[in-house]
Amino acid sequence: MGPIGVFDSGMGGLTVLRELHRRLPAEDLLYFGDTARVPYGTKGERTVQAFAAQDAAFLVNRGVKLVVVACNTASAFALEHLKKILPVPVLGVIEPGVQAALACTRGGPVGVIATRGTVNSGRYQELLGRSIASTRVLARPCPLFVPLVEEGMIEHPITRLSVAEELEPLRGAGVDTLILGCTHYPLLKDVIGRFMGPDVALVDSAETLAAAAAALLQERGLSRDPDAGPGTMEFWLSDIPWKFREVGARFLGRPIDDVQTVNVNEAHWDGHLSLGREETP
Amino acid sequence: MGPIGVFDSGMGGLTVLRELHRRLPAEDLLYFGDTARVPYGTKGERTVQAFAAQDAAFLVNRGVKLVVVACNTASAFALEHLKKILPVPVLGVIEPGVQAALACTRGGPVGVIATRGTVNSGRYQELLGRSIASTRVLARPCPLFVPLVEEGMIEHPITRLSVAEELEPLRGAGVDTLILGCTHYPLLKDVIGRFMGPDVALVDSAETLAAAAAALLQERGLSRDPDAGPGTMEFWLSDIPWKFREVGARFLGRPIDDVQTVNVNEAHWDGHLSLGREETP
Repeated sequence: MGPIGVFDSGMGGLTVLRELHRRLPAEDLLYFGDTARVPYGTKGERTVQAFAAQDAAFLVNRGVKLVVVACNTASAFALEHLKKILPVPVLGVIEPGVQAALACTRGGPVGVIATRGTVNSGRYQELLGRSIASTRVLARPCPLFVPLVEEGMIEHPITRLSVAEELEPLRGAGVDTLILGCTHYPLLKDVIGRFMGPDVALVDSAETLAAAAAALLQERGLSRDPDAGPGTMEFWLSDIPWKFREVGARFLGRPIDDVQTVNVNEAHWDGHLSLGREETP
Repeated sequence: MGPIGVFDSGMGGLTVLRELHRRLPAEDLLYFGDTARVPYGTKGERTVQAFAAQDAAFLVNRGVKLVVVACNTASAFALEHLKKILPVPVLGVIEPGVQAALACTRGGPVGVIATRGTVNSGRYQELLGRSIASTRVLARPCPLFVPLVEEGMIEHPITRLSVAEELEPLRGAGVDTLILGCTHYPLLKDVIGRFMGPDVALVDSAETLAAAAAALLQERGLSRDPDAGPGTMEFWLSDIPWKFREVGARFLGRPIDDVQTVNVNEAHWDGHLSLGREETP
């Protein structure tokens, strides 16, 4: 039966893990963050595909029953490929985000903010375009948001300035729904919400994705017995980044006690790394 | 006799390549940017060491006569290791930067700005501390500068705000010399210079490094005959990033006509990639 495997380019996918745990508290969760090669959002399609296939293989080798691609860029470039090659079901974050946005919009334009890679992939635009006129879809890359979030500059003048600059065209166009198309962006929800105003629905895919995962497990008879007690969480990273504890807690909403490292280059794990050297002096 | 090999985590090292070409126009230059795994400055010591060893091995396998580590974080964490394992001489960018700073300072504090990894390595502090009192050394990470430069936001209000915020403590402390301890930072020289004022010497290591490379080649009889005509430049990357042409030209000071890609995971090159898909729509 195994855990649910979740991977992301780095720590952003912990916002998805958090929602999966809230929705499916009995499930064991195994997280892999490719922190050695983060970010994916600035990189090309073939590179992201190769990395995503390695990340997913790591999870499958550890016996997961479902792979969740908790990274928009990897979902955009690699989901279809992973569905073909993996022996377990795979869910990405883009389709759930699109569904949530379609449930929110009241006929106005729908905005999408994401990494350059995700925007350039055209995946959000394509999926939204199946249900609404493509002229109603406005997609914009916001390349500074990821480093701002990683640095913890959540309520910072530079972040407010960056949000205002990137989102002014979307606010000006009167979007009624804005998809936060990167798992880092939910941490900027307050700043973005204040700028866009109370009438704009901010959509992140975590909740819809968790619902889709719950439905899939139930359909296939893969759910873990809730009477077996609360599920566990296991964290694997390909690098222990500076400020790891601080950043991880911010994304997950609680401290991460323990983490194991894996050498993605050699595609095997290289031991259990004690924490303590990752803090910035 | 081979070319001079230069590697960096990404495109920032092109500022060093440019200076090497200016100083040593007859030398063939082979550049490798690990754009698939960029940045290094946010990553841990062991990860950077492993990546740097792969990057250097790629250059050595292609017959270079000298390896230049054109990345401060890789120089900080991996230079000593590379000197031990490589069959050719190796130069990093930190020692030349320190020498240049010591030649500039007039007895005041010396500031160092760099990535979090470089600052945390303590390498600049250690080398400066051999010649001046450690109380005169002030090192600060500036984690937003790399994404700002990569995005081309050179003269932008957000960049000016970020420069003012990060550098105010150094200006307040009265530094007379400021080391730009990341190969991205020379592109912000104007903004930084305006904020610090005309009395603060801004030091980047490219010029001193090129002089050291010239001296080393001459000493060892490795210089290419200037009468053999102008040297060539060859560019290898592990990923073709979005906006590659624009960013590359900014760092190199002239367009890059042709680039080849290498799959660092498999440690062999995977063909010649035509340009044309890397531009942002």
